[in-house]
Amino acid sequence: MRVYRLPSSYDGEEEITLKGKEAHYITTVLRLKAGAHLLAQDRKGVRYQGVIIVASSASCTIKLTIATKASIATDSLPSYEGAFTPLVLLLCLLKGKKEEQVVRQATELGVSEIALVSSEHCTVQLDKKHPRARFARLEAQITEALQQSGSMVPTTLIDRVLDIRTLDAWWANKGPLLFLHQNSRTQSKDLSTYAKEFDPNAPIGVLVGPEGGFSEEECALLEEAGFLPVFLKSNILRSETAAIYALSSLQELLHR
Amino acid sequence: MRVYRLPSSYDGEEEITLKGKEAHYITTVLRLKAGAHLLAQDRKGVRYQGVIIVASSASCTIKLTIATKASIATDSLPSYEGAFTPLVLLLCLLKGKKEEQVVRQATELGVSEIALVSSEHCTVQLDKKHPRARFARLEAQITEALQQSGSMVPTTLIDRVLDIRTLDAWWANKGPLLFLHQNSRTQSKDLSTYAKEFDPNAPIGVLVGPEGGFSEEECALLEEAGFLPVFLKSNILRSETAAIYALSSLQELLHR
Repeated sequence: MRVYRLPSSYDGEEEITLKGKEAHYITTVLRLKAGAHLLAQDRKGVRYQGVIIVASSASCTIKLTIATKASIATDSLPSYEGAFTPLVLLLCLLKGKKEEQVVRQATELGVSEIALVSSEHCTVQLDKKHPRARFARLEAQITEALQQSGSMVPTTLIDRVLDIRTLDAWWANKGPLLFLHQNSRTQSKDLSTYAKEFDPNAPIGVLVGPEGGFSEEECALLEEAGFLPVFLKSNILRSETAAIYALSSLQELLHR
Repeated sequence: MRVYRLPSSYDGEEEITLKGKEAHYITTVLRLKAGAHLLAQDRKGVRYQGVIIVASSASCTIKLTIATKASIATDSLPSYEGAFTPLVLLLCLLKGKKEEQVVRQATELGVSEIALVSSEHCTVQLDKKHPRARFARLEAQITEALQQSGSMVPTTLIDRVLDIRTLDAWWANKGPLLFLHQNSRTQSKDLSTYAKEFDPNAPIGVLVGPEGGFSEEECALLEEAGFLPVFLKSNILRSETAAIYALSSLQELLHR
């Protein structure tokens, strides 16, 4: 099911007028003409039934009404209809394509929030010249994944890179925060064991290290902050695989 | 941990001489010189301690001795050391890059066997002119993933495309075979429910559909063959995400 993602400027108005790339997307990519219906979703996850009023490749006006569950066709609903555990992905900086792949797949899965994290063994640095370009690319991945998957969870991206040493303050005890570590820490448990202790309605953080893993110092720091070391019941995985492994397994274990 | 994957021609000899690309890999990519040690694995999963006897970019000879567990450095062991459930991935044909990504990640996870499947809604056809090129590319992904991840499971790729209508005969009741379907079948259960009924030592098949899913006719056929419809506790996922979701969750649920 395709769901059009409304721009962040949209704030519940009855009509919205789109210009430029957005108008082009509606008229040329989705090929919608005046009178056509579409399903839309704002940044808070509210869904709207839309009707195109004006459609040209330069400007496109849509009339929006809040969608009731009954007004959404049944075959367009995902197979799982329960509540989604609010999963927060904390992803250490990866190379461009890999990072985009993880962000895209995490959005598709229905992760509520994604933040990039810098750590000692990150080989990738944020481009100092174009610091916004990376976020713009990731935002584009999120928009595309939300529109294609029809996820009900409006995934948001934190618009700055968090330093792993300040993660504790940023997270502010919102809920349990798991970190995946290659070499097993003495206290490591597996996801199934943790899942039994977790409240599926409270946020759960998942911190995924860079290719080189976390340093000993970082592990000690994370544990001191009360973060929970996890081992996966698999091989040592690359970051992009470990992220999807952990998020998928948590959904399978926590969603009722 | 890097593990060198021995060519399929290797059959337990005390020495092996590599030419061309293989010799180049050892001497230029891994930068190993005469006298250097390396860990190697044959196509059956047997591990060897290797010592380079002769190393030039044209020819490279390695002496091999079967590795004992004690001779493998502890830090090179994966975090999970138990037995791997033999997972068989049956993947409907996807576009080139996506297919390679899934095969690579499945290998990394430690899947024992991968086969490509053609079905009604596959938009991708096997290239009639170069039918081998696709398999060669996937084999390269498997080799790279095995070498990089150090997976103990020697993933094999079936060297032909299976027709979904003949899957029953090919599978020959080896164990349970799950298929992921977007629209829930009346009998669909989730992975956690199935996992409780499964023997973690017997092969489990996971059939992942193409972007368009399976047709009604195919679903009926699969169910008639006794294959088990699964729903994932997530959004409707793209094939490449669904495959990793299912394999990861099964490892988490079945590995003890």
